[in-house]
Amino acid sequence: MVQNIQIAVIGLGNIGRNLLEVLLHRRKPIAKQYGLCLSVVAAADSSGAALDPAGLDLERLVEIKRSRQGAASYPGAGRPGVSALEMIRSTEYDVLVDASPTNMVDGEPGLGSVRHALGTGHHVVMADKGPLVLAFAELVRTAEQAGSRLLYSGTVAGGLPTVNIGVRDLAGSAVTRVEGIFNGTTNYILSRMDSEQIEYTEALAGAQAAGIAEPDPTLDVDGWDAANKLVIIANSVLRRPTQLADLQVEGIRNVTLQDLREAREAGKVIKPLALAERQGDDYRLYVGPVTLDADHPMARTGLWDMGVVYHTDYMGVISAVIEEKGPVPTSAAVLRDIVNIYAGC
Amino acid sequence: MVQNIQIAVIGLGNIGRNLLEVLLHRRKPIAKQYGLCLSVVAAADSSGAALDPAGLDLERLVEIKRSRQGAASYPGAGRPGVSALEMIRSTEYDVLVDASPTNMVDGEPGLGSVRHALGTGHHVVMADKGPLVLAFAELVRTAEQAGSRLLYSGTVAGGLPTVNIGVRDLAGSAVTRVEGIFNGTTNYILSRMDSEQIEYTEALAGAQAAGIAEPDPTLDVDGWDAANKLVIIANSVLRRPTQLADLQVEGIRNVTLQDLREAREAGKVIKPLALAERQGDDYRLYVGPVTLDADHPMARTGLWDMGVVYHTDYMGVISAVIEEKGPVPTSAAVLRDIVNIYAGC
Repeated sequence: MVQNIQIAVIGLGNIGRNLLEVLLHRRKPIAKQYGLCLSVVAAADSSGAALDPAGLDLERLVEIKRSRQGAASYPGAGRPGVSALEMIRSTEYDVLVDASPTNMVDGEPGLGSVRHALGTGHHVVMADKGPLVLAFAELVRTAEQAGSRLLYSGTVAGGLPTVNIGVRDLAGSAVTRVEGIFNGTTNYILSRMDSEQIEYTEALAGAQAAGIAEPDPTLDVDGWDAANKLVIIANSVLRRPTQLADLQVEGIRNVTLQDLREAREAGKVIKPLALAERQGDDYRLYVGPVTLDADHPMARTGLWDMGVVYHTDYMGVISAVIEEKGPVPTSAAVLRDIVNIYAGC
Repeated sequence: MVQNIQIAVIGLGNIGRNLLEVLLHRRKPIAKQYGLCLSVVAAADSSGAALDPAGLDLERLVEIKRSRQGAASYPGAGRPGVSALEMIRSTEYDVLVDASPTNMVDGEPGLGSVRHALGTGHHVVMADKGPLVLAFAELVRTAEQAGSRLLYSGTVAGGLPTVNIGVRDLAGSAVTRVEGIFNGTTNYILSRMDSEQIEYTEALAGAQAAGIAEPDPTLDVDGWDAANKLVIIANSVLRRPTQLADLQVEGIRNVTLQDLREAREAGKVIKPLALAERQGDDYRLYVGPVTLDADHPMARTGLWDMGVVYHTDYMGVISAVIEEKGPVPTSAAVLRDIVNIYAGC
């Protein structure tokens, strides 16, 4: 007995495109293991959209994107100039995947589409962080009222199930402290400075050459990406209504090789941390460089690692680390959310 | 809007008793956060049972157990000689918690009660491993047919969400390799041998003094506890119907201080591992000492740690570690399963 699941995807950058590729490879085993037959019936990018209720040819769509064309050029199914919102208004689908680029100003084009999808009873899986950072409570409420599922396990530390562990595996116990390395770029840079004994500027250039830092690295190195993720964790795991303004945010631009050396001499390590620590009834929320003991679970994370440590009252200290060398694990996380809507949780 | 959840507990040893204590402390926040009002209406141990549909007084029950008496001596509600199965047949309840001691011969008294509970539409949360190792497929089938939930996240590595990460967070991707330190006793012993440069016998005595090894440590040091856990992981995460006989199991009795020193000199560490590695269409399943590179995620686990590493095709390498200094986190894991039946997954 097989269930047909129709997916609409907005955003065909790294995450959206890799989702298509992972789907290509994994949909047969998924059909076999879970009885779920996954197809993509609509896909939107900046060029417009491609729509086919019978399911788009994923190989063709991947080819189009690889050759730097847009979804609108998909033969027959392409619709130039159609917006993401117009696309989802015009077709039936079961799950919307919002893989559009994180826009911290107004959350668009994701936010409008996500609102519409949830409000009309469709499930939503997020890789895009903007809507969650700007409108978490509203979206959760909309989903609850409409009976839709809103999943976003791929929004905090790539494929690492940070949200899932925090929300589901700590259920019933209290979280007293969260320490996370949620941004891969800054961990790469500081790790490389430390291991190769080079200064920040040289490590940043190395990170850009390795593809883990953008040409404009501001969002990462000034701590804003990690801050967005901490906002999501504070809202979901700590159940604390939280906005970006509640956080104290520092970047890593001012960390020097000298700082790292002095830390090492003292048996410590400087890591780019996202931190939530309980203070009375509330939490102090901070993003920035933190000096950790060398045996701290986050202290020995490497070039390609991200991680989280959850301190609890009755469940001990639980830490998790992911080694991921590119965007694919985030796409795999989107796929896990889709599967879990129907086959688990 | 509050849901009243009635719990029946079999087994009031460390895990069952600690569950009562964690419940005492956490049920108000749980009622507030999840709208779940948890009460224990039935509790069985070797003396008999205590039954009260209005909910047993947890403080009184904890006191009785602390003073080394049995549930049957609970004033008014005590029923001497009543078996676990008789207890659950004679009362209404929503969730059965099987915290009875793991019995690898026939799984009793847990197995009979779990079968009955699942078959009559009750949810079951396991801390007891026996039934899962002896009858995994049958119990899952019974649960599915009756529409009951069967959860057991506390059966593999205490409070660490090993099962949950493997089943839920890797959904959609393929697991190519699992490496786990699932037994705390053997990790404690080898870690202590290594750090204090002492032989096995002395480290075992230290482990017994520290309360992490039993007077008869066979189940742990001969690898059978880790093997039981690997059977559960193979069945649930790898979806491979598995029995204990499918595993190659070695203990740690023959690991010498010399072995550990030689490993260290080569930049490696010997750890007590549970291992599943893909071999063609199947997995090789092994429990025993393994020599790991010093930078392996499991290599630096400490005295009180357990952990797991999941290698996947598209989701990178995900590892998780728990530091837990006693049985409480396992009880907290039972509580999380209860909460997740109703409030999440």
